[in-house]
Amino acid sequence: MNERSKQRRVDDRRLEILASAGGAIRKLGLRGAGMREIAEAAGLSAGNLYYYFRSKEELVYFCQVRTLDALIDVAKTAAASQGGARVQLGHLIEGHLRVLLDSRTAGAVHLEFDDLPPPLYGKLVRKRDRYEKLVRALIVDGQARAEVRPGNAKLKAFALLGALNWSARWFHPGGVYSVGDVALSFADQLLGGLLS
Amino acid sequence: MNERSKQRRVDDRRLEILASAGGAIRKLGLRGAGMREIAEAAGLSAGNLYYYFRSKEELVYFCQVRTLDALIDVAKTAAASQGGARVQLGHLIEGHLRVLLDSRTAGAVHLEFDDLPPPLYGKLVRKRDRYEKLVRALIVDGQARAEVRPGNAKLKAFALLGALNWSARWFHPGGVYSVGDVALSFADQLLGGLLS
Repeated sequence: MNERSKQRRVDDRRLEILASAGGAIRKLGLRGAGMREIAEAAGLSAGNLYYYFRSKEELVYFCQVRTLDALIDVAKTAAASQGGARVQLGHLIEGHLRVLLDSRTAGAVHLEFDDLPPPLYGKLVRKRDRYEKLVRALIVDGQARAEVRPGNAKLKAFALLGALNWSARWFHPGGVYSVGDVALSFADQLLGGLLS
Repeated sequence: MNERSKQRRVDDRRLEILASAGGAIRKLGLRGAGMREIAEAAGLSAGNLYYYFRSKEELVYFCQVRTLDALIDVAKTAAASQGGARVQLGHLIEGHLRVLLDSRTAGAVHLEFDDLPPPLYGKLVRKRDRYEKLVRALIVDGQARAEVRPGNAKLKAFALLGALNWSARWFHPGGVYSVGDVALSFADQLLGGLLS
């Protein structure tokens, strides 16, 4: 087995662990959940968990990288889709919510990583900046076609992303609203505020 | 001096301290800033700071209570103002941003208090719920007058409040945008998404 497929196997197992511990992570937050609680929720010994994640920092970093990579994919797919700003931004809104709220992923990740040490923090900030740039490009392109209202694209993107990101703080999987309910309602409201 | 005016004097001094430490709190976050850093930034000895706030928890609680009380005042003033949903929700958007972002207050408070112990946490949750209820009422009343689009008022309020609350995470006082710039842009976008 080469290095690459070995890494993939480790990553798959890491994902399984995070999925099993998803409930505990959602309940306590990625910040509040200790390695002991995460191991317990995943049915592992603490030692076994430390085999897959050398530290809590590495675990948080792994979650955040996966989330940001998935968001970047969503933005790229949105930009490649036909049908103008309504379709593209609609795809972005639904995709962003699914990445953050879908319980099959590692649970609600609050996109908060201020606690991480500088090298890891810096890498995540660059990924987040890349995502935000893609989102702004959707808005600017829509403005160039007069499909999106004029105005500062950076501030527009902040309002849009704020509404989406905050959802990880109040959404409860299996609660009153499905991810689909949230996506429909948010798409109506957020597109209503962006489209001309 | 009676108990009440004594308490007010202590609270005034507490506000002064937090205002002096505002830069450090904004930079490190309320969560990241230690009592030592806060004392230093406010030009106090640690012992003197502990005279005003017995613990970091008490300091965080004090900040959050003041922020939530100020938000509740904003929502009440919005509800009492004439001119329909556009004026009322416009007032709310601008007022919410000013409470969170205005550097004359204790600095950007992220409305995150999950770390606090149950009794303090519970009190803040009740205040936050009270604010959110007032915001939903503005939306529901607007819907009753057909000024706000139909749809789930709770989800609409979550999207609105998410956009506003997230601003504390990216806004830099003295940066490219003034609070007024943000308020104008956000009002246009967020009202556009809510009004019919």
